[in-house]
Amino acid sequence: MAGRLHRRLGGWGFTGENFPPTPELLAWLTRQIGPAVSCVPAGAEGSQLPRPRPVPHLGCGVSADEPDRLAHARGQGLPDILRLRAGAVPAFPDAVCWPKTADEVAGVLARCDSAGVEVIPWGGGTSVTGGVNVLPEDRPVVVMDLSALAALESFDERSRLATFGAGILGPALEASLASRGYTLGHFPQSWELSSLGGWVATRSAGQESLGFGRIDDMVAGLEAAAPGGRLSVRPMPGSAAGPDLKRLLLGSEGRFGIITSVTVRVRPLPSNRTIQSLLFPSWHDGMDAVRTLVQSGVPLTMLRLSDPPETEVAMAVGLGATRAAGLVRRYLHIRGIGDGACLLLVGAAGDPQTVRRTLRQAGHLIDGSHGVSLGTRPGAQWLKDRFRHPYLRDALLDVGVATDTLETAAPWSALDDVRQSVREAIAGALEGAQERVAVLCHISHPYPDGASLYFTFFFRVATDHGETIARWAAIKRAATNAIAAAGATLSHHHGIGQWHAPWLEQEAGSTGVAILRSVAHQLDPNTIINPHVLLDPMTRLEA
Amino acid sequence: MAGRLHRRLGGWGFTGENFPPTPELLAWLTRQIGPAVSCVPAGAEGSQLPRPRPVPHLGCGVSADEPDRLAHARGQGLPDILRLRAGAVPAFPDAVCWPKTADEVAGVLARCDSAGVEVIPWGGGTSVTGGVNVLPEDRPVVVMDLSALAALESFDERSRLATFGAGILGPALEASLASRGYTLGHFPQSWELSSLGGWVATRSAGQESLGFGRIDDMVAGLEAAAPGGRLSVRPMPGSAAGPDLKRLLLGSEGRFGIITSVTVRVRPLPSNRTIQSLLFPSWHDGMDAVRTLVQSGVPLTMLRLSDPPETEVAMAVGLGATRAAGLVRRYLHIRGIGDGACLLLVGAAGDPQTVRRTLRQAGHLIDGSHGVSLGTRPGAQWLKDRFRHPYLRDALLDVGVATDTLETAAPWSALDDVRQSVREAIAGALEGAQERVAVLCHISHPYPDGASLYFTFFFRVATDHGETIARWAAIKRAATNAIAAAGATLSHHHGIGQWHAPWLEQEAGSTGVAILRSVAHQLDPNTIINPHVLLDPMTRLEA
Repeated sequence: MAGRLHRRLGGWGFTGENFPPTPELLAWLTRQIGPAVSCVPAGAEGSQLPRPRPVPHLGCGVSADEPDRLAHARGQGLPDILRLRAGAVPAFPDAVCWPKTADEVAGVLARCDSAGVEVIPWGGGTSVTGGVNVLPEDRPVVVMDLSALAALESFDERSRLATFGAGILGPALEASLASRGYTLGHFPQSWELSSLGGWVATRSAGQESLGFGRIDDMVAGLEAAAPGGRLSVRPMPGSAAGPDLKRLLLGSEGRFGIITSVTVRVRPLPSNRTIQSLLFPSWHDGMDAVRTLVQSGVPLTMLRLSDPPETEVAMAVGLGATRAAGLVRRYLHIRGIGDGACLLLVGAAGDPQTVRRTLRQAGHLIDGSHGVSLGTRPGAQWLKDRFRHPYLRDALLDVGVATDTLETAAPWSALDDVRQSVREAIAGALEGAQERVAVLCHISHPYPDGASLYFTFFFRVATDHGETIARWAAIKRAATNAIAAAGATLSHHHGIGQWHAPWLEQEAGSTGVAILRSVAHQLDPNTIINPHVLLDPMTRLEA
Repeated sequence: MAGRLHRRLGGWGFTGENFPPTPELLAWLTRQIGPAVSCVPAGAEGSQLPRPRPVPHLGCGVSADEPDRLAHARGQGLPDILRLRAGAVPAFPDAVCWPKTADEVAGVLARCDSAGVEVIPWGGGTSVTGGVNVLPEDRPVVVMDLSALAALESFDERSRLATFGAGILGPALEASLASRGYTLGHFPQSWELSSLGGWVATRSAGQESLGFGRIDDMVAGLEAAAPGGRLSVRPMPGSAAGPDLKRLLLGSEGRFGIITSVTVRVRPLPSNRTIQSLLFPSWHDGMDAVRTLVQSGVPLTMLRLSDPPETEVAMAVGLGATRAAGLVRRYLHIRGIGDGACLLLVGAAGDPQTVRRTLRQAGHLIDGSHGVSLGTRPGAQWLKDRFRHPYLRDALLDVGVATDTLETAAPWSALDDVRQSVREAIAGALEGAQERVAVLCHISHPYPDGASLYFTFFFRVATDHGETIARWAAIKRAATNAIAAAGATLSHHHGIGQWHAPWLEQEAGSTGVAILRSVAHQLDPNTIINPHVLLDPMTRLEA
């Protein structure tokens, strides 16, 4: 499995890939949070793995080797990376297995269910919510790596439906479709590493969800296996035959079973993808433009509005790095665009004529607003780097800055209040520790009735990894409390995992949680599949 | 309650409204199924109601009067109408209640749960799947009429969200929105009589679902009450906070609780609505055109393709009735359009410029196909009559012809096989009784990955209402078996009700049904709400 060999342990992505901070970003960070006082050594060499406990015969490829167990112990949340770098991972799977068929998945579940062994499904292992983390348990734990279920199982061009094994990762899926002239159009930031089944299990949304929809809308049918039975939802364009069972698996995070194959709705591969950029004098001007555009129904594929701090950073590291920067800044100043400026990216995809028409239509719709076009260069740069951004976290840790992201969504009428209260919660979360937190925010997934808010925050690492994790946990706690108090959703596309689970009842209500529990109990009566995500209310931010 | 007083008992809609068959239709029917041998007397005077059993104090308006009990005994399926006309309704509710608030709904449920009384929720009472039918029971039965929960509870123009009491009917809902410049755009054929909560509970799709979406997509949030607890799903534009609980209520048909309010996504009221019509030489030409248009993404609001028999009837009663008919027929003959012709309606809505542009775009997309434009008259006529069509059933019963409809959906690649096998099943269902069945079919809800198929069938009524119902049941059984065997969905927008429930396990699988049962048990542990729909596998076509 060559792919696995190249994955970086204790960091994002592939060894050899990097996205170092620019000097401008480092200067900005120093101004915001002060100079670094410590740094986090890279690598994950120091982990001591306990001897694996025996697991039953699983009927498929299995490994209890240390590198496999280490590589499947944690997801990609900031504390996961900190623990891996520090050699302070508290628990490891006793074995990793690679079923090759849905029958093998069902077989593993049946054997583990009988033997009282816990099973954690592993797609790309990119959860940032503790969604795949192994915890210290009294019973053995097997991680089920689904990467061998990655075939194109069927392709129905007439109906534009493609069925894939759930373990297929983004690039392989798109390559398979592209060779036939199609695309799924689902590009979460984790796309290079995350799997179709993982997208479904976490209700993922890609960066072009405005045009291509959330994964929720792309799934036409699916198959799943659980100790309580196997579920097959045939692809159907529309139905009124009772509640939509596939919607129950969407967002189930493994608690209701393991998704083995997914039938997705595909579209013709667009020949062209263009992103216009504009600057608005204020967040409110920008937000009004986004709302106008998304409510108009003009077929854009992306709208991404950065708040003033994020715009400042973007200008500093991107546009600001060009020689024309001074000129641009003077021109913008004349147009009334200064410190409060907000950058908007407006994307369209299709044949060149469609792209031109769509962007022209969009331009007319916000003609009366106060946006100033910056052309297509910032968008092209963003598109080029969009899957490299996560590497920045590793490079910043190297120089003593911790960064993470979190997201929510709310109706338009509540959006600005949510943004302000979450921003304040994050910014003030480390006051007790006399540390500052820098916060960036953008809207990236707008809908006619509201939008997502995506926050990126930065703080200084402490000399001790435990203290750094405690700082992170304080920020997460403050932000999640603010989100719940504002009536916004706990997550727009990262999921619940272990880390948001204590707040789920605030959003779903006790009846909602009871419903989910009853389904989990039906499908997994002995609670062996990923038992601590979604429905386990124990706080595990620091686990 | 003035509205109730004007509802026709033992027939569709309002007293005084009619949609009589044209002589051309009657002639066509005689050719297809032979001359009528009997007729079904109108009215529902003969019913003998048993003395109502006592029900507990319900804490809201209650009636045990005969007219109220009679008016809430059955839905609007063909056998319901036959039984009402014949005075052969086997069971009646013991009481009807009208809660005015969600608290009153919850109160009724709690009292009935304690007292072992069954509760059937009643929105508009228009189910054509036995979804609200009272059956003979050992315990008392209360019908909960939700018409008093019909207020606009909130209107968030910025987010384009409106919250209504679930009992509001189509016209009141649209009037409320229209006064603010908005529309929901949900127009099922039952629209004048059916309720928002009913649309949600049955996963309804309106005639313009191509443009406005299914009710599934329109619901942003909802509230429901069940004996097991109250559920509130806050309106959210998008979320990854676990499975989408509102999707569980969509299609739950009352088994999971009673929906008390719904927040819907609304849109600006279009100033213009235009329907172009075209004739294609064959079903396959027409189907290709529909698929091309829907997969192109051109923002049409409706595509409705009639098969050759339905086209023949439409021409006979509509276009054929005009003086230009002969001329048109000769012209079409020259263009190669004869007996196999299929009528396509292509709808667009918006401001006049948008409508023109959309229809022009659509025209270009199917330029190379063999369609011949018939202009906008047939569409205008269809639009004018679209809520009057259901009255035809009553008028036909008066002259001895029974008619009903059923629908399904399937991916494009399977659609034609499904159409043929269901058509054959319906057409041949009464061979044993030496009776013929005439079948019409259309596609009315296309999606990029497939479409609905809507069948209308006609057969002669027998002298005995029981025999007529037996004929209907034979057709339903044959058609539903064919749908299930073809792997199509049991219903595209009518729901499961009592009548399709025996087939649900074939579609959802035993695991799927077990999941739904576990949710029902959680929310309604004593199985008091609408206990015979969705999950009760007993055959009740003739009940």
